[in-house]
Amino acid sequence: MPDTYRRIVLAARPDGAVTAENFALETVPLPQAADGQVVVRNDYLSLDPYMRGRMNESKSYAVPQPIGETMIGATVGRVVESRNAKFAVDDVVVGMYGWSEYGCSDGAGLMKVDTEHVPESAYLGPVGMPGMTAWYGLNKVIEPKAGETIVVSAASGAVGSVVGQLARLHGCRTVGIAGGPDKCAYVTDELGFDACVDYKAAGSDRQALRAALEDATPDGVDGYFENVGGVVMNTVLGRLNPFARVAICGLISGYDDAGGAAPIENPALFLVARFRMQGFIVSDHLPLWPTGLKELGTLVATGRLKYRETIADGLPAAPEAFMGLLKGRNFGKQLVELS
Amino acid sequence: MPDTYRRIVLAARPDGAVTAENFALETVPLPQAADGQVVVRNDYLSLDPYMRGRMNESKSYAVPQPIGETMIGATVGRVVESRNAKFAVDDVVVGMYGWSEYGCSDGAGLMKVDTEHVPESAYLGPVGMPGMTAWYGLNKVIEPKAGETIVVSAASGAVGSVVGQLARLHGCRTVGIAGGPDKCAYVTDELGFDACVDYKAAGSDRQALRAALEDATPDGVDGYFENVGGVVMNTVLGRLNPFARVAICGLISGYDDAGGAAPIENPALFLVARFRMQGFIVSDHLPLWPTGLKELGTLVATGRLKYRETIADGLPAAPEAFMGLLKGRNFGKQLVELS
Repeated sequence: MPDTYRRIVLAARPDGAVTAENFALETVPLPQAADGQVVVRNDYLSLDPYMRGRMNESKSYAVPQPIGETMIGATVGRVVESRNAKFAVDDVVVGMYGWSEYGCSDGAGLMKVDTEHVPESAYLGPVGMPGMTAWYGLNKVIEPKAGETIVVSAASGAVGSVVGQLARLHGCRTVGIAGGPDKCAYVTDELGFDACVDYKAAGSDRQALRAALEDATPDGVDGYFENVGGVVMNTVLGRLNPFARVAICGLISGYDDAGGAAPIENPALFLVARFRMQGFIVSDHLPLWPTGLKELGTLVATGRLKYRETIADGLPAAPEAFMGLLKGRNFGKQLVELS
Repeated sequence: MPDTYRRIVLAARPDGAVTAENFALETVPLPQAADGQVVVRNDYLSLDPYMRGRMNESKSYAVPQPIGETMIGATVGRVVESRNAKFAVDDVVVGMYGWSEYGCSDGAGLMKVDTEHVPESAYLGPVGMPGMTAWYGLNKVIEPKAGETIVVSAASGAVGSVVGQLARLHGCRTVGIAGGPDKCAYVTDELGFDACVDYKAAGSDRQALRAALEDATPDGVDGYFENVGGVVMNTVLGRLNPFARVAICGLISGYDDAGGAAPIENPALFLVARFRMQGFIVSDHLPLWPTGLKELGTLVATGRLKYRETIADGLPAAPEAFMGLLKGRNFGKQLVELS
């Protein structure tokens, strides 16, 4: 066991886009486990869009990340010391130790996971919070029916990729929206979506984006899982069928913009299509997690749910990887490998 | 029986605000009932905001009103000639004969009503489509629970006045938004709302409107019934509690504007408050009408549901009254008395 470990704290709140100066890398002493505690060496750190909201001081659905404290984040790692009867050395555990090489806690919220059938890192992706987010938003907000058309933005990402694959399993026509030909090819060829619209190909030509979406959704859109907001969202809303359902999971296009996400331009569409739009946060629905994670774990273990990871190397690489995530530079789930 | 009657047709589609030139008053021969038909002399014509949408050519939830044909609208009147076994002379009937002194049809969609306990004109208001709109949006979209705070815009109007009174019966704190001190006094003193915000008092000072709403909703807003859109809507959305429900019934502030209703400025609120926003059209839910109308009729008959009417005199007054409705000049349900 080393004497020290590294962590990244929030050094300053961003004013608009996140920069490297918002973070500080610290080396701190490694604690020993007190009675009832465990010490965990984190193997992977999860980077997720929600972290951007925590960096602001403004009102959000969660308390802001305090300045000078370890950045929030989910981790998966191995118990290296235990004075807690529920955990043994070498147990693989998912926790919320943040942007940190080690974690020490009383074990509350720590979950032992099986790595025989499911790879360890998947517990931060399709069998973790991103997968549950997809599962909840699709099943409980959109409530898809076989034969319907379901559209998801950020379709190659950690959440979007699961949304589309689950919708396919429901018997839906599944259409992704992603940035660039590589991501779109992955979405259709590897994940099995029926179509994928490349929003970057349309550039600032909204008519072109609308036309591409129309081609991909000949029967309109019955369910929309929103991760990005902005022009993409406004375009899809204009394509909704009567009684469509829209799950607002994220609005990443506005997270780095001091003005926030772009407006919903045409609220009259709520009357034209009588659709329902609902924002949700998966942590509001913890009682459903065991059900969802079991289903997702089985799908991953049996190869029916595919996923892709972008892995940054070492904790010091986390800020740059996070900034890339906010700009869509990652491809699939963004992780940082720590050990 | 006269030889002729008057009707108002759509002469031209509006370009922005509705003007008198959009309508034409015609005198046409009064038909005799053919076998199976009834002839009805209309006593009252209902004027409703939804008619504005029908005047446009653009995509809406309904087919546009054709040029040169009688303006759509609900009517209540008396059968004056019947060759249909289901109707007798002097039956009082609610129908969709439009802006017209008489109607002649095979009786499809015509509904006989009881005028012993409920005044005839109420079947165009609290016991008609506006009342059902309030009933559906409140009970089926907002789903109020006792103790919650429910806000409704256009609170003194045909729909809003019913929303608030029903919410009170559900045990909710009920807050109206209306234009001017007279309407606000009516909403609190006569309809029994707990509070009413005068949006006109705030003028263009959004901070003042926000402050007035905060005073009226000390515990935030759990349900919002939207009739107007624009600044009022954006202000209320900022006051929603987690898991609030918003029923979009209408967006009258934008109906006369070529640009349509103002945008929803801050979609991130969907995540902050995880609220649900749903547009609805009461005619999508005809199976529920008998249940709702029975409840509303009982409430009116027993004096527990109050309403107010603004009655224009004679069919030629209908266009001016309709233009006033779109500007909020009416007070309560806008009717035209025809006979």
